[in-house]
Amino acid sequence: MTIYDVIDRKKRGQALSEEEIRFFVQAVADGGASDAQIAAFCMAVLLVGMSEAECFALTRAMVESGERVPRPRAAGPFVDKHSTGGVSDSTTLVLVPVLAACGARCAKYSGRGLGHTGGTLDKLESFPGLTVSLTPAAFEAQAERVGAVIAGQTARVVPADKRMYAVRDVTATVDSIPLIAASVMSKKLASFADVILLDVKYGEGAFVQDAEGAVRLASLMAGIGRRAGRKMCATVTCMDQPLGDWVGCCAEVREAVGVLRGEVQNDLAALSLDHSARLLRLALGISAKEAEERVKGAVASGAALQKLRELVAAQGGDARAADDFSLLPLAPRRAIIRAPRDGFVQVHALPLGRACVLLGGGRQREGDLVDHGVALHLLCRTGRRVRAGEPLLEVFHRGDAQEALDLAAEGFSVGEMPAVQPLIYRTIEEDT
Amino acid sequence: MTIYDVIDRKKRGQALSEEEIRFFVQAVADGGASDAQIAAFCMAVLLVGMSEAECFALTRAMVESGERVPRPRAAGPFVDKHSTGGVSDSTTLVLVPVLAACGARCAKYSGRGLGHTGGTLDKLESFPGLTVSLTPAAFEAQAERVGAVIAGQTARVVPADKRMYAVRDVTATVDSIPLIAASVMSKKLASFADVILLDVKYGEGAFVQDAEGAVRLASLMAGIGRRAGRKMCATVTCMDQPLGDWVGCCAEVREAVGVLRGEVQNDLAALSLDHSARLLRLALGISAKEAEERVKGAVASGAALQKLRELVAAQGGDARAADDFSLLPLAPRRAIIRAPRDGFVQVHALPLGRACVLLGGGRQREGDLVDHGVALHLLCRTGRRVRAGEPLLEVFHRGDAQEALDLAAEGFSVGEMPAVQPLIYRTIEEDT
Repeated sequence: MTIYDVIDRKKRGQALSEEEIRFFVQAVADGGASDAQIAAFCMAVLLVGMSEAECFALTRAMVESGERVPRPRAAGPFVDKHSTGGVSDSTTLVLVPVLAACGARCAKYSGRGLGHTGGTLDKLESFPGLTVSLTPAAFEAQAERVGAVIAGQTARVVPADKRMYAVRDVTATVDSIPLIAASVMSKKLASFADVILLDVKYGEGAFVQDAEGAVRLASLMAGIGRRAGRKMCATVTCMDQPLGDWVGCCAEVREAVGVLRGEVQNDLAALSLDHSARLLRLALGISAKEAEERVKGAVASGAALQKLRELVAAQGGDARAADDFSLLPLAPRRAIIRAPRDGFVQVHALPLGRACVLLGGGRQREGDLVDHGVALHLLCRTGRRVRAGEPLLEVFHRGDAQEALDLAAEGFSVGEMPAVQPLIYRTIEEDT
Repeated sequence: MTIYDVIDRKKRGQALSEEEIRFFVQAVADGGASDAQIAAFCMAVLLVGMSEAECFALTRAMVESGERVPRPRAAGPFVDKHSTGGVSDSTTLVLVPVLAACGARCAKYSGRGLGHTGGTLDKLESFPGLTVSLTPAAFEAQAERVGAVIAGQTARVVPADKRMYAVRDVTATVDSIPLIAASVMSKKLASFADVILLDVKYGEGAFVQDAEGAVRLASLMAGIGRRAGRKMCATVTCMDQPLGDWVGCCAEVREAVGVLRGEVQNDLAALSLDHSARLLRLALGISAKEAEERVKGAVASGAALQKLRELVAAQGGDARAADDFSLLPLAPRRAIIRAPRDGFVQVHALPLGRACVLLGGGRQREGDLVDHGVALHLLCRTGRRVRAGEPLLEVFHRGDAQEALDLAAEGFSVGEMPAVQPLIYRTIEEDT
């Protein structure tokens, strides 16, 4: 068996055996396959496709290419959530403390922002002093004592994915459903969560443009998780417009805290509480109604907000920021984007995410520093009727912002009444 | 425009513009595109396809990536032939002197053998002292004086093809009809021939397995040549069994000389004289019948053999070898492969070509030395009835040959009467 043969068989539309897939992935991890061979393989998979069995084998081989994250000794079940990335999606910041407050431990690894999508770790670091670099011992102790941890990955998890992703990123092979599924699920299966919710975004600001493609991806990933013995559920949600009303690190933390206080009622609140209830139901084996009530109760009682304070303090952060937003300062200069004419508003997530990056609030490439104070505040959402001159967006910046403001203005069309997509397009339950 | 965008558009099934194709090829030549990007592009083309217009643009951009071969000052027309490669195909050694003897100059660049296919330059170097490394001035002088030259390429012709081919070779992207067409035709169009015959092989020993694929490739290449103002014709021929009855450098030269002497009557003789007549007809604008007669006349009169002697002498070789085969010595040890049972023979070109390489008579990788004396002699061809023990193949080697003999034995199946394919499956004429 050679790498050439594996590529050749896939390109001819043949299903690859588990052994062939394991051979290929091992060669990706150990350098036996060249970048060109990885690129050819990925393009062949993108154009020819893969069966669910092949995709499961690919995922498992990728898990086996690296280390597993050790399971903390604390009693489970452990829950986890993965979103395929979007703009103003800070559901993790709400969901982790809510679940911990309800007795379902959520000790998770998150990522950093890149391109137009934000990252949970960057947002969390808005808390003064907070660190996301936890030793395995500190991660485990916090999982036991607080039941809520959000940290950066330290183990050498799924090295084959790291290499494959770097190749896919420059060869137009990111948007392959089986490759996305294997990439996401290999990282989940290398970790220890018993119950996993996948939130697959579709639309302008997402990897997958069409809703049905997102449904296929969600179903495939849920199926892979189940084959590996995890309890899975998934939602397919619209990412045409930002999820919350704020974009930017400190601003999104403020908004998440607002949800935990019960003060914010918007799509972010709806989705993060919905996700919390879905996970809680599966984790504790209770009814959907019971789960919803416990989630509401954790918010109403202040228990969820208290869990956030505990998480922040346990990771060395200043938990007073959850009560005093002056500790989460926004950039000092303000600009307003106004409606150019009368009409109905349609909001576009992609230019808004990019405008935030351009202002320094996100990362153009790995390793860039992030300005936590930069923020965009949506003053209206898709479907709202506005008058010419009415404010659409408030921008918090540090000057020299014209290019970003022009880009942010592209985040709004004003004209005919647009089709308004429901937030949740489809849900995939454990029992389906 | 970025390399990423070009790959992305092709992968989505969109036709690329001339500008996009030129941008990509330039980046291949100047290093702006990575090997991974070249591989992804080639796999996308292989699976999605390319229109004839795109393929012509790709060919032209590849020509423009390097130098052109200067046209000799001698009066034209110049004729050329290209074969997609096979086993025991020494038609060039017959065709070049025949055409020159008939007044159509053939000053061509040829290649070396690699893998199971032999190369004209290696065969020609069987003549003691002969060089294929000619200066541009020597090439031009010989084109004028002899009208027949076969040399190795010295100009930096089509560097983009060299790099793309190296990537394709390891990424299972060689067998794409538009990529083969652009690779072959870019090298032809970078040179000066007015009349070109393409011999596209199909079958076990060829790039293209099926006859209809070979017809598509031949038509596409002929179309590209015509768009560039060349007179084109093509044949699609079967490469299930070796073309001639000998495989190996000295042996194939001996066989070609036999054809020029009028002593050999086999598929090699038929095809090389057919090709000569097709080219002569187009070059001189005479009828097919007239062309055939002149070709036969050049053989019968000895004028063609005399041209070979002139070519060999002009390139520093010992022309006496054309009359004294002891100057083209075969390897001293002999072995016989015999029929394992009674039945009909089917010959397979691929294991025979590989067995010759294994004995040292060909090249496993670029730069390997070639043993000119190694030879396989087919004692029967596909369709012949044999008795158990009857000799099928005579092998000339230098010892330690068991592995190669076992491989060579795979070159013959003996059993039911096989389907015998006609030598020429299809011809494509200038006027179609």
